[in-house]
Amino acid sequence: MQLTHFDENGKAIMVDVTEKNDTVREATAKGRILVSKEVYDAIEAGTVGKGDVLGVATTAGIMGAKRTSELIPMCHILPITKCRVNFEMKPEECAIDCYCTVKVTGKTGVEMEALTGVSVALLTVYDMCKAIDKSMEIGEIYLCRKGGGKSGEIRNEKIDGQKARPCQN
Amino acid sequence: MQLTHFDENGKAIMVDVTEKNDTVREATAKGRILVSKEVYDAIEAGTVGKGDVLGVATTAGIMGAKRTSELIPMCHILPITKCRVNFEMKPEECAIDCYCTVKVTGKTGVEMEALTGVSVALLTVYDMCKAIDKSMEIGEIYLCRKGGGKSGEIRNEKIDGQKARPCQN
Amino acid sequence: MQLTHFDENGKAIMVDVTEKNDTVREATAKGRILVSKEVYDAIEAGTVGKGDVLGVATTAGIMGAKRTSELIPMCHILPITKCRVNFEMKPEECAIDCYCTVKVTGKTGVEMEALTGVSVALLTVYDMCKAIDKSMEIGEIYLCRKGGGKSGEIRNEKIDGQKARPCQN
Amino acid sequence: MQLTHFDENGKAIMVDVTEKNDTVREATAKGRILVSKEVYDAIEAGTVGKGDVLGVATTAGIMGAKRTSELIPMCHILPITKCRVNFEMKPEECAIDCYCTVKVTGKTGVEMEALTGVSVALLTVYDMCKAIDKSMEIGEIYLCRKGGGKSGEIRNEKIDGQKARPCQN
Amino acid sequence: MQLTHFDENGKAIMVDVTEKNDTVREATAKGRILVSKEVYDAIEAGTVGKGDVLGVATTAGIMGAKRTSELIPMCHILPITKCRVNFEMKPEECAIDCYCTVKVTGKTGVEMEALTGVSVALLTVYDMCKAIDKSMEIGEIYLCRKGGGKSGEIRNEKIDGQKARPCQN
Amino acid sequence: MQLTHFDENGKAIMVDVTEKNDTVREATAKGRILVSKEVYDAIEAGTVGKGDVLGVATTAGIMGAKRTSELIPMCHILPITKCRVNFEMKPEECAIDCYCTVKVTGKTGVEMEALTGVSVALLTVYDMCKAIDKSMEIGEIYLCRKGGGKSGEIRNEKIDGQKARPCQN
Repeated sequence: MQLTHFDENGKAIMVDVTEKNDTVREATAKGRILVSKEVYDAIEAGTVGKGDVLGVATTAGIMGAKRTSELIPMCHILPITKCRVNFEMKPEECAIDCYCTVKVTGKTGVEMEALTGVSVALLTVYDMCKAIDKSMEIGEIYLCRKGGGKSGEIRNEKIDGQKARPCQN
Repeated sequence: MQLTHFDENGKAIMVDVTEKNDTVREATAKGRILVSKEVYDAIEAGTVGKGDVLGVATTAGIMGAKRTSELIPMCHILPITKCRVNFEMKPEECAIDCYCTVKVTGKTGVEMEALTGVSVALLTVYDMCKAIDKSMEIGEIYLCRKGGGKSGEIRNEKIDGQKARPCQN
Repeated sequence: MQLTHFDENGKAIMVDVTEKNDTVREATAKGRILVSKEVYDAIEAGTVGKGDVLGVATTAGIMGAKRTSELIPMCHILPITKCRVNFEMKPEECAIDCYCTVKVTGKTGVEMEALTGVSVALLTVYDMCKAIDKSMEIGEIYLCRKGGGKSGEIRNEKIDGQKARPCQN
Repeated sequence: MQLTHFDENGKAIMVDVTEKNDTVREATAKGRILVSKEVYDAIEAGTVGKGDVLGVATTAGIMGAKRTSELIPMCHILPITKCRVNFEMKPEECAIDCYCTVKVTGKTGVEMEALTGVSVALLTVYDMCKAIDKSMEIGEIYLCRKGGGKSGEIRNEKIDGQKARPCQN
Repeated sequence: MQLTHFDENGKAIMVDVTEKNDTVREATAKGRILVSKEVYDAIEAGTVGKGDVLGVATTAGIMGAKRTSELIPMCHILPITKCRVNFEMKPEECAIDCYCTVKVTGKTGVEMEALTGVSVALLTVYDMCKAIDKSMEIGEIYLCRKGGGKSGEIRNEKIDGQKARPCQN
Repeated sequence: MQLTHFDENGKAIMVDVTEKNDTVREATAKGRILVSKEVYDAIEAGTVGKGDVLGVATTAGIMGAKRTSELIPMCHILPITKCRVNFEMKPEECAIDCYCTVKVTGKTGVEMEALTGVSVALLTVYDMCKAIDKSMEIGEIYLCRKGGGKSGEIRNEKIDGQKARPCQN
């Protein structure tokens, strides 16, 4: 199958979307960070009073999503119309899940914006906790839902930790 | 334990490193992307001739590492003196591993730069292949090695897919 | 009253404007810098020949307005269609007033762009004069006029230095 | 007196600081935003639970301070080693005061970084509250203290609302 | 003739394009770099296997084109819908020609985006080869074609090295 | 000869300069824009009163030089300590020459910063005049002088329009 981001000579290009329609497009991506018990407790304490790690990470994730086209070489500039970053605490796994939902009326989708928002938000959590724990791990970053555009509605579900967990946001 | 990125009132701060010494600091981070067989083959074909996905992702990763302080709110601006992004193809797992090594002579470490470099490089791979496969997954992003600074040499090794696989770069 | 930039759980969000109409929107903001007589004279001399402080500040203000969405976390990216920065010398008060007018056809207003343009322009004046005077003061930054969008035409007028001075641009 | 940011022909320049010494330099700037009672109450409520306007503004201010050299044309790039943004609620005046303290070991001072941090933080407060009140005003942005460098310690104090109120941070 | 980027008082402005129509606009710019035989051979070798200078430069050119409005003060922000950078090796002249084609549906043209893309791509070639040759020269950067908008189709052709060489892309 | 920006496998890298000495380094680059008589006269008129094209371009060039490491993928981040952009009017050739001189105390040179400063300044001139003339040409961009670092003093002189014209700044 042909990679769309290269021309007939194998040179990288920003795909021409000029003729595509402006439609409402939406995407939700998900990711998680695995932390030590000590970090987990510090983050949880922060959400109820002081040292609000997830508050700073939310802001960073939204700002990061807006800068996707600066970071990802072949991404189009998209004036996104909505961005939301959420976290879910998973005490039994010492994990924090992050969801980012992005929306636009445009000629191309916002999957990369959602994935970038998740990535920057989780890197921010990492940064603020790395003095306590240097073995945290960021992972399971994937697109869980997209809507609009030519490919229409798509959902990736995970079962038993394999690719396919349902997600909503 | 106290989170270092907050003051005594729980307000987020950029930590004061003025009095810390300028020493050589280095860090290597690792991550991977899981792709379909079809994407895997397209990427592998690209590295031997046309449609060089990993070449574009290498450039994006290096540029992303340089912009870490713009993305991660409490990160210091570091004039990094080296940045290298490498990929390793893992055919048996349909995975591509990415390593980013960053070096600086400075007052604080470059873990976040290495982790950001890996993240942006993998997001770029995702972007260039997403027309073929919308269920790729980015994960296992962690710091595998750091050197220099107060905490000295640290290695995170993984055994059997659990946190602790040794890595070198 | 509910703050619009937070969701029902108090988490910061970029407001969803997807369903809003694209209409012509315009905003003018104003601010001023109070300087010493010496600085005032140097700036005035510059406008008539050499050392054109206000020329540099005009350029900086326009460039700053374009980058509003990078600086203000919850601001939408707006491809503004007009930006104008003007200064008025106020000799009797040793003040320089700055106006910034921004226009867009979009789903949300350009108040923040106008306010950011004024702020960056005045900070630039400050920067270029701070070797002479370290007690300058920037102030009275407010929205003096906006048009378009749901809230329609709004004017803030100031009387006797209190909020409400009329402004035009 | 000669403006330092222009050459002998009146052309704007970035001042040559190559030969200046690397010394520890610090600066604190202050500013305030005047808001309606309704906005004041909403912000205050946010600091004790949900809708944390000042938390977002703190993050924005720190990130803004780091980008000063991109916004202010003749500013040098400074790898700042500390940045702190604080707010003080002033109920009797319906005002919120903002302080930003920045530190660096470098060849030139960080006044502009502190002033930019304050400006961006206050613009962020404005943005998040503008749906409630469109007549807010940002003002009294000035350098309250700087230390280090050739000009040494400087304090601007304000008496009775005139330039000269003492400030500390 | 009046310069359009200044108002009636000679102050720089970002031209108001609010009332202009959104139409498809396209532009192709061209430039070249003259290098030593040694550099030429190294670049040519790279394109067939390792050290792919032009691959990196292609990525840089596309990313540079996207950031035109940040670099050129009076340029509008344009969400470009296509960007392509190509190189042509000219062995007889030890030259490498670069073409950049940009497309948008918007209110103003993309000439500056195409010219900026060419400039950044050629600067990147320069950077990667400057350890071998410090006397390279970048030149002949011009708009070879534009279409759409009020001024319609325009072609600049060059004859015998003078302005007017035909170009296509 | 080996290209320094690639590793032993031909992968692009940011060269490791960690062990290099911090020394004073300086570079001057030059370029020119060829314009129509009409544009030339408009620019010249602007420099003596209104519509100061070269003033805006000077500011843009300095700001562009500061952002070199964001644009050129393998460039190091350099906190430059001086930047100066100058223009020389060449009436007999309908040309405007641009010089950019950059200085730093660092581990690597500032050639790319000087070349980028020239490029952005000339692109800005182009942008502001393109409504009058669409056949302008930017060219002859080269490094005319560098000092400091391992390679020491280098001068590129041009004779009869060939590479080697002496330049000073």
